[in-house]
Amino acid sequence: MKKFINDPAQVLSDALTGIRLAHPELRVDSTNRVIFRAEATRPGKVALVSGGGSGHEPMHGGFVGAGMLDAACAGEVFTSPTPDQILAATVGADSGAGVLHIVKNYTGDVLNFEMAAELAAAEGVRVESVVVADDVAVQDSTWTAGRRGVGTTVVLEKIVGAAAEEGLDLDALAALATRVSESGRSMGVALTSCTVPAAGKPTFDLPEGEMEVGVGIHGEPGRSRVPLASAHEIARMLVDPIVHDFGEARGDAIVLLSGLGATPLIEQYLLYGEIAPLLTEAGFDVRRVLVGDYITSLDMAGASLTVVRADDEFVRLWDAPVVTPGLRWGA
Amino acid sequence: MKKFINDPAQVLSDALTGIRLAHPELRVDSTNRVIFRAEATRPGKVALVSGGGSGHEPMHGGFVGAGMLDAACAGEVFTSPTPDQILAATVGADSGAGVLHIVKNYTGDVLNFEMAAELAAAEGVRVESVVVADDVAVQDSTWTAGRRGVGTTVVLEKIVGAAAEEGLDLDALAALATRVSESGRSMGVALTSCTVPAAGKPTFDLPEGEMEVGVGIHGEPGRSRVPLASAHEIARMLVDPIVHDFGEARGDAIVLLSGLGATPLIEQYLLYGEIAPLLTEAGFDVRRVLVGDYITSLDMAGASLTVVRADDEFVRLWDAPVVTPGLRWGA
Repeated sequence: MKKFINDPAQVLSDALTGIRLAHPELRVDSTNRVIFRAEATRPGKVALVSGGGSGHEPMHGGFVGAGMLDAACAGEVFTSPTPDQILAATVGADSGAGVLHIVKNYTGDVLNFEMAAELAAAEGVRVESVVVADDVAVQDSTWTAGRRGVGTTVVLEKIVGAAAEEGLDLDALAALATRVSESGRSMGVALTSCTVPAAGKPTFDLPEGEMEVGVGIHGEPGRSRVPLASAHEIARMLVDPIVHDFGEARGDAIVLLSGLGATPLIEQYLLYGEIAPLLTEAGFDVRRVLVGDYITSLDMAGASLTVVRADDEFVRLWDAPVVTPGLRWGA
Repeated sequence: MKKFINDPAQVLSDALTGIRLAHPELRVDSTNRVIFRAEATRPGKVALVSGGGSGHEPMHGGFVGAGMLDAACAGEVFTSPTPDQILAATVGADSGAGVLHIVKNYTGDVLNFEMAAELAAAEGVRVESVVVADDVAVQDSTWTAGRRGVGTTVVLEKIVGAAAEEGLDLDALAALATRVSESGRSMGVALTSCTVPAAGKPTFDLPEGEMEVGVGIHGEPGRSRVPLASAHEIARMLVDPIVHDFGEARGDAIVLLSGLGATPLIEQYLLYGEIAPLLTEAGFDVRRVLVGDYITSLDMAGASLTVVRADDEFVRLWDAPVVTPGLRWGA
């Protein structure tokens, strides 16, 4: 295992130290392992809180800031945050206008966010939740009943984050979040395994010359183990299941092609060059696109494609200013 | 070799296709392999042109846009762009106010930019040049007389790009660029080799349990091959040579910690958490910091640290708006 780490048991707390030192615009609660915006909460603004296991950076801590999240809870690597952590994030981020929980569909995440929502309610904080389950690769998975939640979460946090800044109330934001969630589909591919620091060895074996199609962001098995193919062929393996899953639905789209951690940008762009024509051919009009590392799986080489069917309102909110470490643009 | 590619000989042209499809705000000249801003040149504005071998993405093509470069020439992977390419970029980007060439100190790059500058002069375009040579690891290297040019280039392109938008003339920009270049020092470390697609195998051998301290961004040998150390120890191996090279000079700094391509963000932040206290201890006041992949070496696992001594003017220009694929923030 070759990594920039000290003690494998201290990876999360050491990484949070680096985030704190690099980002004065964030406030890192080291005890609860919650990343907040540094500025005070704004009365009337609904807070967006997300979180999950670490190892997917910049998601979610890197999406805290104006125009996106108000707080993110960092679980241990590939481990759900605890209800206590989520409660601290929820209570700390609430301005009195309520909190929207954005949860990826993994059993531990869903249970712990639910428990935290109940605890928060007992403290007088109103919470609504959206669960993202957009991975078309498999129906159930290692830690999931139903589909896994992946890249649509990033797009949702951006769009709903913009709407929260505009002052939408909790019910309206929850409805918008559900609409984005239901509009997104994702599919990933791994060229290598990842290595969890505490385990010290690759999560799964993936021999030279093979790849895992439909892999999960924790290295969960996908649909098939096949011979390593060209980028041209891999693009079709990502696009076809997504298009098929959309049924007759076509039209405008926001597209995210994310590297999984160890795949350099030159390969990501090369792959996008193969994906874009397939989406056009299938009847999608790609209105906005992001290529880069946004939802990762430690040091896994691979990529995941997310397509979100988008109306003009989604695109307008996508274009709104955002100032976070992981996603940032001006007015 | 596990990569998202088609034909190893077509990696650059295929990647440029992806960049063109992902970024309507850029104009990709596929024939000359030059990335321009899509909008017309602005009379009176000096153009900034950079370039070099591919494989270091987002540098340089990802730094084309408002507030940074006007054009970037992409050579084949780890291969200097040709004089013809650089000439096309120079002539195409010139608004009549002249062009500043930003060159990393590699023999081929320096020669070909010089030749292009002469050819451009023959066409009536005035060109000034700055050569960045900031890598303190070694004095000469595989493809370099003198120090290699690395991360200071990114900081320079941002600062001088902002000044060019403000309307500084060519001489003033060249002087500013020289000042930034002389203020920067860098040092890198590799945990793994990279693999050039056309070669199909790792550039060098780096056994499990060893790392290369002072590596170049093409895999050039560094100062020493040593046993894999903790992030805490590695931070000192990066900071100490830089601090030593600055001599008595201390004070405000802009810091870049770049991943080399296959190192995930969680490790980069963890490493920055070890670096920041050492810089403070050495007497630097880190005014601004960037952590992420900005100057890479294909799929090499590793990181490089750049420290630029910065006055208030550097910081003001650093903070100015920038809209590029690789670096982007608002007013």
